[in-house]
Amino acid sequence: MLHPDRLFSPEPHLRNLARELYGSVAGLPIVSPHGHVDPRLFADPNAAFGSPADLFIIPDHYVTRMLYSQGIPLEKLGVPRADGGPVETDHRQIWRTFCAHFHLFRATPSGFWLRHELSEVFGVDETPSAANADRLYDRISEKLASPEFSPRALFRRFHIEVLATTDAATDTLESHRAIRASGWDGRIIPTFRPDGVVNLDTPGWKGNIERLGAVSGIDVVDYSSFIRALEERRAFFRSMGATATDHAVLIPATAQLSPREADAIFQRALKGQADADDALRFSAHMLMEMARMSIEDGLVMQLHPGSLRNHNRSIYERFGPDKGADIPIQTEYTRNLLPLLNKYGNDSRLTLIVFTLDESTYSRELAPLAGHYPALKLGPPWWFLDSFNGIMRYFERVIETAGLYNTAGFNDDTRAFCSIPARHDLWRRACANWVAGLVARHIVEMDEALEMMQELAVGLARRAYRL
Amino acid sequence: MLHPDRLFSPEPHLRNLARELYGSVAGLPIVSPHGHVDPRLFADPNAAFGSPADLFIIPDHYVTRMLYSQGIPLEKLGVPRADGGPVETDHRQIWRTFCAHFHLFRATPSGFWLRHELSEVFGVDETPSAANADRLYDRISEKLASPEFSPRALFRRFHIEVLATTDAATDTLESHRAIRASGWDGRIIPTFRPDGVVNLDTPGWKGNIERLGAVSGIDVVDYSSFIRALEERRAFFRSMGATATDHAVLIPATAQLSPREADAIFQRALKGQADADDALRFSAHMLMEMARMSIEDGLVMQLHPGSLRNHNRSIYERFGPDKGADIPIQTEYTRNLLPLLNKYGNDSRLTLIVFTLDESTYSRELAPLAGHYPALKLGPPWWFLDSFNGIMRYFERVIETAGLYNTAGFNDDTRAFCSIPARHDLWRRACANWVAGLVARHIVEMDEALEMMQELAVGLARRAYRL
Amino acid sequence: MLHPDRLFSPEPHLRNLARELYGSVAGLPIVSPHGHVDPRLFADPNAAFGSPADLFIIPDHYVTRMLYSQGIPLEKLGVPRADGGPVETDHRQIWRTFCAHFHLFRATPSGFWLRHELSEVFGVDETPSAANADRLYDRISEKLASPEFSPRALFRRFHIEVLATTDAATDTLESHRAIRASGWDGRIIPTFRPDGVVNLDTPGWKGNIERLGAVSGIDVVDYSSFIRALEERRAFFRSMGATATDHAVLIPATAQLSPREADAIFQRALKGQADADDALRFSAHMLMEMARMSIEDGLVMQLHPGSLRNHNRSIYERFGPDKGADIPIQTEYTRNLLPLLNKYGNDSRLTLIVFTLDESTYSRELAPLAGHYPALKLGPPWWFLDSFNGIMRYFERVIETAGLYNTAGFNDDTRAFCSIPARHDLWRRACANWVAGLVARHIVEMDEALEMMQELAVGLARRAYRL
Repeated sequence: MLHPDRLFSPEPHLRNLARELYGSVAGLPIVSPHGHVDPRLFADPNAAFGSPADLFIIPDHYVTRMLYSQGIPLEKLGVPRADGGPVETDHRQIWRTFCAHFHLFRATPSGFWLRHELSEVFGVDETPSAANADRLYDRISEKLASPEFSPRALFRRFHIEVLATTDAATDTLESHRAIRASGWDGRIIPTFRPDGVVNLDTPGWKGNIERLGAVSGIDVVDYSSFIRALEERRAFFRSMGATATDHAVLIPATAQLSPREADAIFQRALKGQADADDALRFSAHMLMEMARMSIEDGLVMQLHPGSLRNHNRSIYERFGPDKGADIPIQTEYTRNLLPLLNKYGNDSRLTLIVFTLDESTYSRELAPLAGHYPALKLGPPWWFLDSFNGIMRYFERVIETAGLYNTAGFNDDTRAFCSIPARHDLWRRACANWVAGLVARHIVEMDEALEMMQELAVGLARRAYRL
Repeated sequence: MLHPDRLFSPEPHLRNLARELYGSVAGLPIVSPHGHVDPRLFADPNAAFGSPADLFIIPDHYVTRMLYSQGIPLEKLGVPRADGGPVETDHRQIWRTFCAHFHLFRATPSGFWLRHELSEVFGVDETPSAANADRLYDRISEKLASPEFSPRALFRRFHIEVLATTDAATDTLESHRAIRASGWDGRIIPTFRPDGVVNLDTPGWKGNIERLGAVSGIDVVDYSSFIRALEERRAFFRSMGATATDHAVLIPATAQLSPREADAIFQRALKGQADADDALRFSAHMLMEMARMSIEDGLVMQLHPGSLRNHNRSIYERFGPDKGADIPIQTEYTRNLLPLLNKYGNDSRLTLIVFTLDESTYSRELAPLAGHYPALKLGPPWWFLDSFNGIMRYFERVIETAGLYNTAGFNDDTRAFCSIPARHDLWRRACANWVAGLVARHIVEMDEALEMMQELAVGLARRAYRL
Repeated sequence: MLHPDRLFSPEPHLRNLARELYGSVAGLPIVSPHGHVDPRLFADPNAAFGSPADLFIIPDHYVTRMLYSQGIPLEKLGVPRADGGPVETDHRQIWRTFCAHFHLFRATPSGFWLRHELSEVFGVDETPSAANADRLYDRISEKLASPEFSPRALFRRFHIEVLATTDAATDTLESHRAIRASGWDGRIIPTFRPDGVVNLDTPGWKGNIERLGAVSGIDVVDYSSFIRALEERRAFFRSMGATATDHAVLIPATAQLSPREADAIFQRALKGQADADDALRFSAHMLMEMARMSIEDGLVMQLHPGSLRNHNRSIYERFGPDKGADIPIQTEYTRNLLPLLNKYGNDSRLTLIVFTLDESTYSRELAPLAGHYPALKLGPPWWFLDSFNGIMRYFERVIETAGLYNTAGFNDDTRAFCSIPARHDLWRRACANWVAGLVARHIVEMDEALEMMQELAVGLARRAYRL
C-alpha cells in the first residue's frame, strides 16, 4: 500500500532526485522538539496503548472532527463527555464506524498518517473499510497486546533521539521524574508552558496561581513574587532537561509595562477584578518578561498565536477543549511583535520561534522579520498547515526571503505517539520533493541540496532548540 | 483549435492519468445548482438569442469589463445606458471591436470559455481577430437563426440535468410557471433570494416590502407579518421546485436579535428611519432566521459575501449594476459566523454553503470550519476565482483540512447560457488535473480517484443541493 | 556554474518550450523604468565602483540583512554608522565574511543574482566560500580597476535602453544635467518623488519645504503656492526626461479635501502644529492632486504602499534608513483607492501603476480593479516578491482576472547597478517558464506566446511608462 515514491513529483528526473535526497535522510533519528504526547506512557514500563480505538480514534481530534463534520456524533466515537454521560463503549463498534468512513480522509494528511501507521507500525496494507473492519481490529488488537508494542519499545523502534512534551508551569513533572528514576534511557524532556498563569482570563487562573505558589515554594502575593515563582519553575524545568518554553495567545501583542502597572493589574486579578483589557495588556507584558528570562536562562521561546479556541460552545460544554473546534483567525505580526523585537530581537542569546495559522503572513510579515532579526526563527507549518501542500507553500513563500537558516526545522506537534514517524516521514518526503525542484531548476547544486536535507531533517531543529 | 488535452499537465504520466479521469466524467450530465440565466429564454418555445453581440458581448460583464479596462467605452459595446441615451446599435460593429481585441483575453478563463463556445457550439475553430470578424459574424448569425440554436434545443444538446435560476423573494416566477405549463420537460428550478427585502438599505426597500405583501397575500405591517410573508414565499418557491436560497451580504455577520428588537428596527425601517447600524444588525439577524427556516423547510442556504458592489459610481449611474465594477474586500468568517454556527451548525438538517472571494480565508478559516461543523459545506471557487489556477488553489488549500466531502461540487454561476458547458468542462478538466496529481504522487489509488471524479462532476452538487 | 536552463521546468517538453520562449527575448535591450541607482555613477566619466565589498556587500541591504539575521553585526560588514563610529574598513575582511556565509543565500533571489553577476560580469564560476574568498577578491578587484568595468562601460555592455532613477522633488538633478552636458548618450532619466514634501510627518519636512521654495523659485507660504511649486518641479523633471512620478505611503488612502481644508492643514504644518490625522488626510489628498497633475502633464503615477519603514529602531538610530528593517503590513486597496479611482480612474490619460507587498490582495483586490479601471495598471512583484516563486505567484493570481495587458512589465527597483542584468534575466526566465506552461496546457498558441514574451520583456514597460 505504501508506495516508495509517495509524494514525490512523478516527473522522472525530479522523482529520481527526490528519491536520492530522501534516501539521504530516511534513516536519520527523529528529533521531536515540540509535541503533546503524554509522558505517563513512558513513566510506567508496563504502560500500553489500549484498543485500536484508543490508539487511532478516541483521543485524536484530527480524526474525530472529520467524522463529526459528516454528522457522526462524538458520543458514537467514544469521546468522553464532560459530565460523564453515556458514550459508545464498544471499541470494536467505534472502529467499524471509523473504517466505514475512511474515504473521508482521502487526500488529507490524516489519511496519509493513518495509512503510514497501519502499514509501517502494524503491517496492515489494506485500506480500511466496512468490509475489513473486524479483521483489522483483531489483527491490531493482537499486536497491541504484545510487549513489542509497548510505548517504550516503539520509542526505540521509531528511532527517536529526543521527544519534548508540553507541560503546565505548575506541573510537578512527576512522569518525567519517574522516567529518569526508572533508569530507562529514552530522552523525554519537558517544555515550560505558563499560559495558565500568565493569561489572567484562563478559567481557574486563581487556582493556578495557588498551585504555582505551592509547587515553587514561593508565596505568590504580588507581581514580584509571581515573577520569582516563574523563574523558580523555569529553573526546575531546566533541571529536568527542558530547553524551551511555549506560549499560546490569540493575538501576539507585546508591550512593556512598568513594574508598578504590572503589579496593579496583578493585584486586581488576585481580587477577581481584572477586566479584558487588563488581561490583554498583562499577557502582552508577560511575553516581554518571558523573552527577558529566556535571554537570562537560555530557554528557547516558542509563540503559537491565532487560534480561536472552543469556537463551538456546545461541543466545549459537552466534551471539553481540544475537540477539533479551534478555528484560526487573521493574525498580525509586524506591529504586534515590534516592541518585543525592538527590545530583545537584536540579541543573539534569544531564540524566539514563531508559528502561524495565517499563511498570508508568510511572505508579507514573517519571512521579512525572520530575514532581519537575529533572535527570530520561523517555526514549521503548524496544525492544519502540517500537510504536503502546506509544507510546499511554506517553502515557496518563506525561504526566498527568510533563507533556510532562519527556520527551525520540523515539529510533529502531536498527541498521537504512533503518528510521529508518519509525520516526520511526510515532512522529509516533502522536503526532498522541494529540494529536488531546486536542483532540477539549477537553483542549488546537489552537494548543497544534500546539506540542506540534513538541516531540514535534524540540524535546524537541534540547533534552534539547543538540543 | 480545442486541443483534447487542454489544461492537463504536459508531463506524460500525469497527462495520461488526467485523460482517463476526465474521460470518466466528460459524458455526465450537467448539474447547475446556482446561476443567473434568465428563465424567459425557456418559457417561450420560440425564444432566440439574438445576434452574436447579444450572445457573447453585450450582457456579459466578464467580457465588457476587460474591453473597458483597455479604454473601450461601454457605449461602443452596445451596453444600454440607464437613461436610454445613445449607444452603438450596429451589432456587427460591436462584434468587430470585440474580435480586434481578442488578445486581451489571453490566459483568462473568459478566453477559455469563449473559444470553447465558438468551437463546440458554433463550430468556429479560428481565433477571432480584426481580419476574420465579419466572416465569423455571418457564420454565427446564420446558426443562431436556426431552430437547432434555440435555448430549449441547446438545453437538450448541452445535456443539462437541472438548471437553477436566481429569483427575488417577490418574484411571481411567471416564467417558471410558463415552462411547467408548456409541458416542456427541461428541469429549470428557481432559487429564493430575499436580499431586496431583508437588507433594509437596498434601494427601493419599501417598494419591495409592498410587493412582498402583494405576492404573499400577507399584509406586511410588522416584523411578525414580515416573517410570515417570507415563510409563505419560501413555501411557494419550494412548490415551484426550489431546493435552495441565496444570500449576498458585504460582511457575513450573524447575530440573534430578540423579536422585540427585530420589530423595533423593522418599524423604524417602515417609517424610513432605519440607520446603517440598524441595517447591519437586521441583516445579521435575518441570516439567523433564514437558517432557522432552512432547518424547518429543508431549503439549502447559500451565502455569498465580500463583494463591494458598484465600486465605480459613474459606471453605476450611467449603466446600472453588474457592469464589472464589483470589487472584493477582505472577509472574516471565524468570528462573523460564530453565532449562527453555534446556534444551528451542529444540526445536520441544515446545509449552509459558504462562498468567498478572499482566498486567504481558504486554509485559515473556511476549511477548518467546514472540517468541523456538520451543517457547513464550502462552495466552489466563485466569480474571479472560477478559473484554472483558482480551482487548483482551491483544491490545494481546502481539501487537506476540510476533506473533499465537505465541499459542494461546482456552480457555473453564469448569466451566459452558452458558456455553461464551457465552464463545467473547465471545472472537470481542472479536477482531472488535480486528481491525476494525487494518483501520481500515490496519495489516492485509481479506484478512489474515479469515485472522487464522479463526486466532483455531479455527486457533491446533487447531494449538497438536495437535487 | 550558470546552467543555460536555470529556473526552467525540468519536464522535457516544458523545458524545450521555455528555452525557445526565453531565447526569443534574451537579446532584447533592458528597459528599467524604476530603480534607485545613483546617477553620479554616470555623471563622472571616470567614476568607479570601488572594491568588491563596495560593489557587492556594503550598500546592498538585501545582502547585509541576511548576514545580520544570522548574528553578524553590520559593523563587521563595513556598513557606515550614522555617528561616524568605527566599522570594519578592511574590505578584504568584509569579503571573507560574506564568502564564508554564502550558504545563507541558498534558494534566495539574492543568491541567484549574485551568482549571475559573478559569472556574467566577472567571469567567476565558483561558489564563494571561505576557501576561495581571497582568490575571488583579487580577481574581481583587478577587473574593477580596468576601464571596461567603469559604470558607463557596463551600461553599454548591459545593453540598457533606458534607466530611470528616483529623485526627491527638491533635487536639482545635477548629475542628470552633468550626464547630458557630457555628451554621453546613455539614456538615464529622473523620476519625480515628492514624499518628502507631501507627507507632513517626514522628518525634516519644514526644511524640505524651504528647499522646495528655493529650487522652484516659488515662495511656499500656503497651500496654493505649494501646489504651484510642485507643478513647477514636475515641469522641470519632465524637461529633464522624466516620464513618471513615484509615491511611497504606508496606507494607500485617497481623499479629496476642499482647498480651504488643505490650506488649513498646510498652515498648521508650517507652524509645526499638524498632528497625525492631519498628515494622513493631507497625504490622502495629495495623491488625488498628483493624479490630477498626471492627467494634465502626462507623467505616469506609481504608488508603493505597505512598508513599515525602520521597524528596528536601534538599527535605524545606529545606521539610518534602508538597512533591511522595513517590514510589510497588510494593505487594503478596494476602499482606499475608491475616491481616487472614482474621480480619475475612468480617464485614459492617467496611468496609475500600483504595487503591493501583500500578495493576498493580488486576486482579491488588485486584479479585479486593474481588470476594470482604464487608468489602473498593476506593477510587477516588488521587493521581497521579486523572486522566482514570487513572480510565478503573481502570474497565477493576477493574469486570469486582470489580463496581461493591464500589467506594467518589469521593474528591477535596485540600487545595485551590476545586479540589473541578473534581475531582468530572472524575470525573463520566469516569464518563459510561465508562458511555456500556458502553451503546454494549450491555453495559448505559440504565436500568441511569442507576442506575450515581447510584451513581458520590453513592450508592457515601454508603453506603461510612456518611454
